[in-house]
Amino acid sequence: MSQRELDNLINSIAQAGHRVSGVERRRFLKSGLLMVGAAASATSVAGASESVGVPPNIPPWSKRLGRGVVSHPYGSPSPHEAHVQRRTVDWLTADRIASISFTPLADLNGIITPSGIVFERYHAGVPEIPPDQHRLMIHGLVKRPIILSMDDLMRFPSQSVIRFLECPANGGMEWRGAQMDKLQFSHGMLACCEWTGVRLATLLEEVGIDANAAWVLAEGADGAHMSRSIPMDKALGDALVVFAQNGEMLRPEQGYPLRLVNPGWEGNTWVKWLRRLEVGDKPWYHREETSKYTDLMADGTSREFTYVQECNSVVTSPCPEKPFRVKGKYMIQGLAWSGRGKIKHVDVSVDGGVSWHQAQFTSQVLPKALTRFALEWDWDGSETLLQSRAIDETGYVQPTYGQLRQARGTNSIYHKNAIHTWKLSPQGIVTNVQIS
Amino acid sequence: MSQRELDNLINSIAQAGHRVSGVERRRFLKSGLLMVGAAASATSVAGASESVGVPPNIPPWSKRLGRGVVSHPYGSPSPHEAHVQRRTVDWLTADRIASISFTPLADLNGIITPSGIVFERYHAGVPEIPPDQHRLMIHGLVKRPIILSMDDLMRFPSQSVIRFLECPANGGMEWRGAQMDKLQFSHGMLACCEWTGVRLATLLEEVGIDANAAWVLAEGADGAHMSRSIPMDKALGDALVVFAQNGEMLRPEQGYPLRLVNPGWEGNTWVKWLRRLEVGDKPWYHREETSKYTDLMADGTSREFTYVQECNSVVTSPCPEKPFRVKGKYMIQGLAWSGRGKIKHVDVSVDGGVSWHQAQFTSQVLPKALTRFALEWDWDGSETLLQSRAIDETGYVQPTYGQLRQARGTNSIYHKNAIHTWKLSPQGIVTNVQIS
Repeated sequence: MSQRELDNLINSIAQAGHRVSGVERRRFLKSGLLMVGAAASATSVAGASESVGVPPNIPPWSKRLGRGVVSHPYGSPSPHEAHVQRRTVDWLTADRIASISFTPLADLNGIITPSGIVFERYHAGVPEIPPDQHRLMIHGLVKRPIILSMDDLMRFPSQSVIRFLECPANGGMEWRGAQMDKLQFSHGMLACCEWTGVRLATLLEEVGIDANAAWVLAEGADGAHMSRSIPMDKALGDALVVFAQNGEMLRPEQGYPLRLVNPGWEGNTWVKWLRRLEVGDKPWYHREETSKYTDLMADGTSREFTYVQECNSVVTSPCPEKPFRVKGKYMIQGLAWSGRGKIKHVDVSVDGGVSWHQAQFTSQVLPKALTRFALEWDWDGSETLLQSRAIDETGYVQPTYGQLRQARGTNSIYHKNAIHTWKLSPQGIVTNVQIS
Repeated sequence: MSQRELDNLINSIAQAGHRVSGVERRRFLKSGLLMVGAAASATSVAGASESVGVPPNIPPWSKRLGRGVVSHPYGSPSPHEAHVQRRTVDWLTADRIASISFTPLADLNGIITPSGIVFERYHAGVPEIPPDQHRLMIHGLVKRPIILSMDDLMRFPSQSVIRFLECPANGGMEWRGAQMDKLQFSHGMLACCEWTGVRLATLLEEVGIDANAAWVLAEGADGAHMSRSIPMDKALGDALVVFAQNGEMLRPEQGYPLRLVNPGWEGNTWVKWLRRLEVGDKPWYHREETSKYTDLMADGTSREFTYVQECNSVVTSPCPEKPFRVKGKYMIQGLAWSGRGKIKHVDVSVDGGVSWHQAQFTSQVLPKALTRFALEWDWDGSETLLQSRAIDETGYVQPTYGQLRQARGTNSIYHKNAIHTWKLSPQGIVTNVQIS
């Protein structure tokens, strides 16, 4: 359509009494509209030369050639999206080598997390491993110990699954009250990717486990020699030895060239840079399953080997990073997930848990994967408390903070899955609060 | 595990008569083994100082700290994967502004294509569009024409779906015989991503279409003003106005900030940089649906508006880029897809179509999405012809070249979905051949 045709069209729309703007959005956006169209139509209808370049006029980028193919053989997001990045919290850990960065959940859509912004959790930083020098050794209570190269491993049958990955400390800072002022930091040790690898069961069948084999130790090639004990039923179940993530080889910070994936289980057990699997008859009680990654109870004892990431959810829009600008209709959106299977039901409350409304799913609903939900809501501009509550296919209902603290006290920093509350101010500003 | 413990372990394995190598892989990799373990165990068991650093010994990267968190706020693949990139074929088009780059299918896993290596197809290059200046105008045979900003659009209900994207010219060079020497070029105008957007039906409901509305014109903001006519049943069906891809905002080369997604339909209709939707009572017969993107038949007439990408498949391993190195057991792997729904069944032939074996699915099986299949095969080292044949849930069976040419002649360059043949040589080298 030429500029002249466009001018004629815009004039005819204006003369017919229709405003070329959002004000005519009668159905979904009837109330609380941004008057974005007013300025645009004013300049457009005037047809003045200075209006050229302001959409809906034909903008300058429609009048010239853009960059050609493979100018970016491996592409990147638009420079306008540079704010979408992993971030860390400097006070959280002593240094950045054994630290955490967080996924920018507020800017994500759907259920796939782009590999470039999946959260990071290291114990000795990211090792740089040449894949042709990497080996996986499988030994212990087995009949035929082996050492596999990457080429060897990739000849075994493999499968691809979309599963969430969550650090068990996700939200751990919230046990004692609302602390984090951004969604990225309150829930951002969370991601969901497609993972491709060989079933651990296939490898254990290859080596032939002994009759008394009951546990598998997984050890990483990083400087921390990160290691965790995995019970045999998980090892023979859905555990995978994974080499690819979201279609391509694992990213360095996600374990390149090899990691363990235990779907639905705490991220700490998804041992990265996997170099050794030892089969034994009891757990090893290594550092990361004793002094860390146990749940300290009110009476001073600890729950140990608490692997499953229980059913959880959070509202991602609005959130502190995504305030409401004006009154009117919105989709309250969020994420739900469960380490035990599919999400069955999500409720949303706009009155701090007094009443609940069933949300709809707006993505694929896959087992042990992030699941998107949304609820249409007409915000009248008053202050309120927003919550979501997920139920998984086992019937498990996400608990309140009161229920969680009654069961486990307030010492813990792991497996916090309580119903989260955002306070929405009359100005549309969202803050992190807690109610029991 | 310390180096000393490791040395003891490796010695004990060696003394017990087990080779610390692939040669003990009795079950899956019994025949045709790479003797990768021999060298490794020789140096390891010797325990000589020069063996330190050769896995299974503790390698240098396990003895030092790696890089810390957010050293890469938006991460990239390992430098060892730098060969995985989009590539173009210089003789295919006159220049790179109106050209094609291809997805490196041979190096992909699962069904998600990383956004950075999704193939490109431009008609005037990639425009650089500031999202706050982008507008979508919806007008024509509607009651309430509107112009939406990106903020406006993102307040509507949205949904996320995983769907394949394929250029209708994918494999078009093959109509007259095998031409392309790589999988990347024979099938690489293909990708599969999660797309998030607003149903076009929702937007059309917002503006209120007239009784005689039957078609929608979609126009892009690029210099080519790319435009296509979409029939109303698709517009009111599963068509989406999409702003996000694989979780984040669209990449510039995929239409940032807005594109049309017509699941299962030829990529050319997925208009990028979408700026205008016009509702009409007949198709527009614009350039890209007359002189291009029609199928020239043997008698000189053209099939027009041939939107659906019919059921198709290809073996991705082995392929020219992924030869076999030795005899023995392999998983023959590949991709299948159909624009009409889910893949129901894939057969693989290792004798040029004389006999067929049912492959297994190794990924999610989703409608109008790439689907992974695999078949275990023990290659005896003889020359053979490898093929795959997909059947979708409508019962449509992927045709042979003979069947396709009988129906449509050899003039066409669009909608080539014939059964593809790779010739595997005794040396494990794979070449592109054709059989009818």
